[in-house]
Amino acid sequence: MTVTTPKGFTASGIAAGIKASGRADLAVVQNTGPHFAAAGLFTRNRVHAAPVKWSRQAVSDGQLAAVVLNSGGANACTGADGFADAARMAAATAGHLRLPADDVAVCSTGLIGIRLPMDTVLEGIETACAGLTDDGGAAAATAIMTTDSVPKTAVREQDGWSIGGMAKGAGMLAPGLATMLVVITTDADITAEQCDAALRDACRVSFDRADSDGCMSTNDTVLLLASGASAVAPGTDAFTDALTELCHDLAGQLIADAEGASHEIAIEVVGALYEEDAELVGREIARSNLFKCAIFGNDPNWGRVLSAIGVTDADFDPDMIDVSFNGVQVCRGGQIGEDRSLVDLTGRHVHVLVDLHAGEHTATILTNDLTYEYVKENAEYSS
Amino acid sequence: MTVTTPKGFTASGIAAGIKASGRADLAVVQNTGPHFAAAGLFTRNRVHAAPVKWSRQAVSDGQLAAVVLNSGGANACTGADGFADAARMAAATAGHLRLPADDVAVCSTGLIGIRLPMDTVLEGIETACAGLTDDGGAAAATAIMTTDSVPKTAVREQDGWSIGGMAKGAGMLAPGLATMLVVITTDADITAEQCDAALRDACRVSFDRADSDGCMSTNDTVLLLASGASAVAPGTDAFTDALTELCHDLAGQLIADAEGASHEIAIEVVGALYEEDAELVGREIARSNLFKCAIFGNDPNWGRVLSAIGVTDADFDPDMIDVSFNGVQVCRGGQIGEDRSLVDLTGRHVHVLVDLHAGEHTATILTNDLTYEYVKENAEYSS
Repeated sequence: MTVTTPKGFTASGIAAGIKASGRADLAVVQNTGPHFAAAGLFTRNRVHAAPVKWSRQAVSDGQLAAVVLNSGGANACTGADGFADAARMAAATAGHLRLPADDVAVCSTGLIGIRLPMDTVLEGIETACAGLTDDGGAAAATAIMTTDSVPKTAVREQDGWSIGGMAKGAGMLAPGLATMLVVITTDADITAEQCDAALRDACRVSFDRADSDGCMSTNDTVLLLASGASAVAPGTDAFTDALTELCHDLAGQLIADAEGASHEIAIEVVGALYEEDAELVGREIARSNLFKCAIFGNDPNWGRVLSAIGVTDADFDPDMIDVSFNGVQVCRGGQIGEDRSLVDLTGRHVHVLVDLHAGEHTATILTNDLTYEYVKENAEYSS
Repeated sequence: MTVTTPKGFTASGIAAGIKASGRADLAVVQNTGPHFAAAGLFTRNRVHAAPVKWSRQAVSDGQLAAVVLNSGGANACTGADGFADAARMAAATAGHLRLPADDVAVCSTGLIGIRLPMDTVLEGIETACAGLTDDGGAAAATAIMTTDSVPKTAVREQDGWSIGGMAKGAGMLAPGLATMLVVITTDADITAEQCDAALRDACRVSFDRADSDGCMSTNDTVLLLASGASAVAPGTDAFTDALTELCHDLAGQLIADAEGASHEIAIEVVGALYEEDAELVGREIARSNLFKCAIFGNDPNWGRVLSAIGVTDADFDPDMIDVSFNGVQVCRGGQIGEDRSLVDLTGRHVHVLVDLHAGEHTATILTNDLTYEYVKENAEYSS
């Protein structure tokens, strides 16, 4: 049920010894062909990690044959030496698998500002490459976890072809790609151009709209590798639809496992003049610490929703806005609506519906509440 | 030591019964002349409260003779009825003090989305107007507190003239004016135009750079009233300097008393190509929950500083950035610098120095850490 579900892929995940805890920390995913089409999307943070620099270059020709991933260190803010480390990870993987180094992408996650223990990493890469199997996807998904409490995987099986994916990310989870590593595989027979177009479309409405804590990471990477091993060419639309579903599934899993969260919140903005307005408004609400604390306290605090909306330059009239929490319209026309005591926020899922009454567009942002546990994890964990 | 320190001002603060707790909740400040020059700055939140709409209009002719303020309810998101309530507060104050209603500004703070108990408010206004004295400033400063733990006042005594101020604000404390009410009085003989220019200059580098929690309120108001009672005309520059000092003092007091904070953090950005870049970078760091949690945990986490800087479009080269915590340069040239264990963050004051090495400009943003107490207060308190 993961990256090795599609035909033409092998994977492995091992404990190389990068993490002091001894937990799994190194994974390899290989595309065994016959095709090697690929696409990638990366963090828009201008401070980006060495593996991001490497992988952006590696995928730029639309072709990848393998990905090597480690947890236990982000290899970010490590300068020219760090870039050389990322290049050595790719070269070592390529050597063991008899590939050109520039067909190997590299992903790292963990602490910023420390060098990776390269002897340990290189030894681990040898072991992981030797252990690649066609059911190694679950082990790979586990090896990329940091503060994640569960591995995240998803598949979509279609008529004769499939897509599989794995993801990690529980903090620095914000847009411009939620902070995360994602590897998606497919045995569909599609070109690199189709991969690129489909990945952009799917990410725009899924990972880009998962905003747990507003903090954009230095290492975000989403890679799509297509083996063509099913010999089925589904066409761009059908492929994009399935890929979008899979990305939504993984994005939901990321939000469900976000650090310290006690509520998963879907902020649905409707009635926007532009889709960009809907996204902007949803994102501003998702980033209001006061709103997030209120949800933690099971308080349908629509005043904090309105004060967040008011900061944006979206098109709206403050006296037209409606806000509902879990189906109860507590704010109507910018004023007091139904009795807030009718709202039940004790469950884990919260649906906030904002109607701007300015147009026909909509967007949904996924986020979390702000809890003691979030503060605790991020006060105690150095990332 | 407050708004009644300058000559030509009286004030009062009483418990009118708006707050269920029975604490003081209504204040009046009167300018007894001979001059009535005034200026005001207001929240840039497009969802702004009725008293903001009223006061912006009242001060637009450069003249105010009194301010009526209440805590216990923000009169925000209350529609046309709420605006009528604010107008009635001004009219009632004006009636008791024999003033035109449009010379009276109104400020409210507290819960968003509830109507004020107008009978109680109007009765309170009568009592407060009857109780105006030339040493009533301290009582007024106490009556505008919400989650503030201490009243905030400041004065600057100059050669024959003075400035006094009071402020409230402990949450929704963010730019575009920190979330707050501020009334500043002076007996300097200055024009409304001088008031306006000096107030804009002073706020731009003080309240506008205090960003406790990134949440902009619906009620922010800063008013400056000048009585001319000292008969001294200090000139715009001297007045602006003293006013800026006073605003820095009050802004520091707001950050020192921010909800649940255990650290007061000054983020000084130097070496920026433009002052706007310095401010943008400082603000982005101040709004990173991960950075704020790290400070709570006494962790000089420079990786989170760099990842926040990287989100901005300020002019910088990631490989040139230096970051120091309390004098220890833990990041040099975008990479690992001095040993982070040399940094001591156990004290309440934290100084983060960021050098972009891109120019000569600088700005300092004041903020707080993100703590269990912040979450607790804002999960339990409806604002």
